[in-house]
Amino acid sequence: MIKTDILIIGAGPTGLFTVFEAGLLKLKCHLIDALPQAGGQCSEIYPKKPIYDIPAYPEILAGDLTEKLLEQCKQFEPGFTLGERAETIEKQDDGTFVVTTNKGTQHQAPVVAIAGGLGSFEPRKPLIDNISSFEDKGVEYFIKDPEIYRNKRVVIAGGGDSALDWSIFLSDIASEVTLIHRRNEFRGALDSVDKVQELKNSGKINLITPAEVINVIGHTKVEGVVVHQSKNINEESILECDHFVPLFGLSPKLGPIANWGLEIEKNAIVVNNALDYQTNIPGIFAIGDVNTYPGKLKLILCGFHEATLMCQAAYKIINPGKRYVLKYTTVSGIDGFDGTRKEAPKAVVKKIE
Amino acid sequence: MIKTDILIIGAGPTGLFTVFEAGLLKLKCHLIDALPQAGGQCSEIYPKKPIYDIPAYPEILAGDLTEKLLEQCKQFEPGFTLGERAETIEKQDDGTFVVTTNKGTQHQAPVVAIAGGLGSFEPRKPLIDNISSFEDKGVEYFIKDPEIYRNKRVVIAGGGDSALDWSIFLSDIASEVTLIHRRNEFRGALDSVDKVQELKNSGKINLITPAEVINVIGHTKVEGVVVHQSKNINEESILECDHFVPLFGLSPKLGPIANWGLEIEKNAIVVNNALDYQTNIPGIFAIGDVNTYPGKLKLILCGFHEATLMCQAAYKIINPGKRYVLKYTTVSGIDGFDGTRKEAPKAVVKKIE
Ligand SMILES: Cc1cc2nc3c(=O)[nH]c(=O)nc-3n(C[C@H](O)[C@H](O)[C@H](O)COP(=O)(O)OP(=O)(O)OC[C@H]3O[C@@H](n4cnc5c(N)ncnc54)[C@H](O)[C@@H]3O)c2cc1C
Ligand SMILES: Cc1cc2nc3c(=O)[nH]c(=O)nc-3n(C[C@H](O)[C@H](O)[C@H](O)COP(=O)(O)OP(=O)(O)OC[C@H]3O[C@@H](n4cnc5c(N)ncnc54)[C@H](O)[C@@H]3O)c2cc1C
Repeated sequence: MIKTDILIIGAGPTGLFTVFEAGLLKLKCHLIDALPQAGGQCSEIYPKKPIYDIPAYPEILAGDLTEKLLEQCKQFEPGFTLGERAETIEKQDDGTFVVTTNKGTQHQAPVVAIAGGLGSFEPRKPLIDNISSFEDKGVEYFIKDPEIYRNKRVVIAGGGDSALDWSIFLSDIASEVTLIHRRNEFRGALDSVDKVQELKNSGKINLITPAEVINVIGHTKVEGVVVHQSKNINEESILECDHFVPLFGLSPKLGPIANWGLEIEKNAIVVNNALDYQTNIPGIFAIGDVNTYPGKLKLILCGFHEATLMCQAAYKIINPGKRYVLKYTTVSGIDGFDGTRKEAPKAVVKKIE
Repeated sequence: MIKTDILIIGAGPTGLFTVFEAGLLKLKCHLIDALPQAGGQCSEIYPKKPIYDIPAYPEILAGDLTEKLLEQCKQFEPGFTLGERAETIEKQDDGTFVVTTNKGTQHQAPVVAIAGGLGSFEPRKPLIDNISSFEDKGVEYFIKDPEIYRNKRVVIAGGGDSALDWSIFLSDIASEVTLIHRRNEFRGALDSVDKVQELKNSGKINLITPAEVINVIGHTKVEGVVVHQSKNINEESILECDHFVPLFGLSPKLGPIANWGLEIEKNAIVVNNALDYQTNIPGIFAIGDVNTYPGKLKLILCGFHEATLMCQAAYKIINPGKRYVLKYTTVSGIDGFDGTRKEAPKAVVKKIE
């Protein structure tokens, strides 16, 4: 059982900044995310695109925003359960909540902050009858740890940025990378498309287009895939491989959270007010894209504000009766849980003679 | 008469970010500030100190934050009335407001956003009987345009950062700089204290300590000051000069805004809700440090959020009946009023063969 002060569901920008604000109040956080990496929409959907409306950043790539937020909260040592979906929540007699993931990992905390964005990112799966029996046995819908592909034969399917970028990345690690797409045209950053062309020319990536994987074969794990090449009607061939990774994009689904007894409106969690973004269940808060209230804007900068106000309420739940007086970081500095201290250089009082 | 869409009172971080958010909605802004420069508390009180809780900035100097905010909103061409205090507001028959400053400058807009922080920064003045008759005639309490001191004899009084930093700066511009302080010890950044010592040693700054200016002399304008040196009781001497600049710090005063008929609580303007931060007078909003509502935190990041929500309400007032659909900057790019366009590089659709 993982125990913490604030259990955050969703490691997007809102969840990450919560770690920082909670840390200022000496509260520890743990984050659960269905994705294998932090950053939410920013890292999953548009890491290489610029955002223009992060305050005081005339321009920042979504991926860099994630990096900066991770760096900012690092000193408060957040815990992470990545690649798992928060599935159930149960209130304990002592008032704390236990949240269990689809993989059975259990987490306990007095405060739960749902920063789930548009929902848990779930892969779009190809329509292959027997595919589910190979999940985690050679079929993966997103790449969590590239090292598992070292010296393996990998088949990637897809025609977008993820398929292109992972093909490039794995061409250095895997013994064989085959990229299969049902069209000849790929859609992505110009750089990535050109790089794949180059790697194909030099024989480091095998390209099969237009084609589709129509079956997975193997006994206890993936041993190959059946490829149907669309240009030659009915031409099917078997391609031996150790991994089949269909990268058809992830789509967010509010998913299990919808069944937690929270008031839901238009796929978002209703928060009673803009005081602290608490839901209809005391102790459970909803912040960032996942919540709704009059005037709500689904913007990153709004999630930052909501996270900050929420932490004040969390503090009161976790430290009943204690009064917290807001301190400026500039004035008080920051004491990390890792023993580091940041502080402004002090003014001196010095004689001039 | 200066006309604009949103008239912003206060050019602190909240006011500056309002320009950006308003610009996204194609609304023009004009800012009034009592200070000679933008940045509010950040530039007046602690420009060289680090802030640690600006989201995605693990550390940023308050002065750099101001620069970044100015850069971010530049494309929306804000107007500025600096060094003037907004004094009166009058509602016109056509529903717009006219705001007049202490120097008589008039501004007209359908929406007024008060982003006045802790209030208008007013200089602490030395207790010298006749000083007020020399104001703007050689006596200045803050430095608006350093060029007016070129080749002039300047007496600066004070013992803090402003006195130190302006003495250093003007030692290159003025023909003579004299720094007078009632103690031998100065309080400021170590760098600044050391630099003044150095300039004193090389004769570029005259230092008179411990001492006080007790009188200003001159006919129609400053011709000199009377200096009382504390170590020799009753030693008074006349120091000829063209300017006398007492830099004893600025302190914020809610000031005239307190008489505008707005609901005030603990020196802050009550906003009805966290929907749009509108005050009890429709069309007048209060955002940033200047407002209060349940849960309010006087933090920069909260001002950013409030400014953003406020702009949506301003849009509705200025474009009645029109519906605004929120667009992501990443997706839609940004069209500056100056003709510039920012946009994310487009994905390509390209054949790999
Ligand atoms: C193309 C695009 C461009 C955009 N441009 C801008 C822009 O310019 N400016 C701007 O402000 N915003 C922009 N946005 C919106 C911005 O990305 C979101 O507002 C922001 O990501 C919301 O952050 P969040 O942390 O609230 O949620 P998210 O980023 O959505 O993160 C939520 C996380 O929670 C996880 N999660 C949800 N439920 C569960 C569960 N049950 N178990 C485990 N994990 C779960 C998800 O997997 C996800 O990683 C853009 C969005 C897109 C798609
Ligand atoms: C030493 C110190 C350290 C701080 N550290 C932090 C920190 O670490 N993190 C954080 O988030 N915040 C910090 N703050 C607080 C932060 O600076 C404020 O929250 C922020 O400046 C508020 O921005 P604002 O734009 O709302 O108002 P302000 O910055 O106060 O700006 C308001 C402006 O309005 C002008 N004004 C007011 N009335 C009038 C009028 N009638 N006419 C003309 N002009 C007028 C004023 O002159 C002023 O320039 C700190 C503050 C101080 C003093």
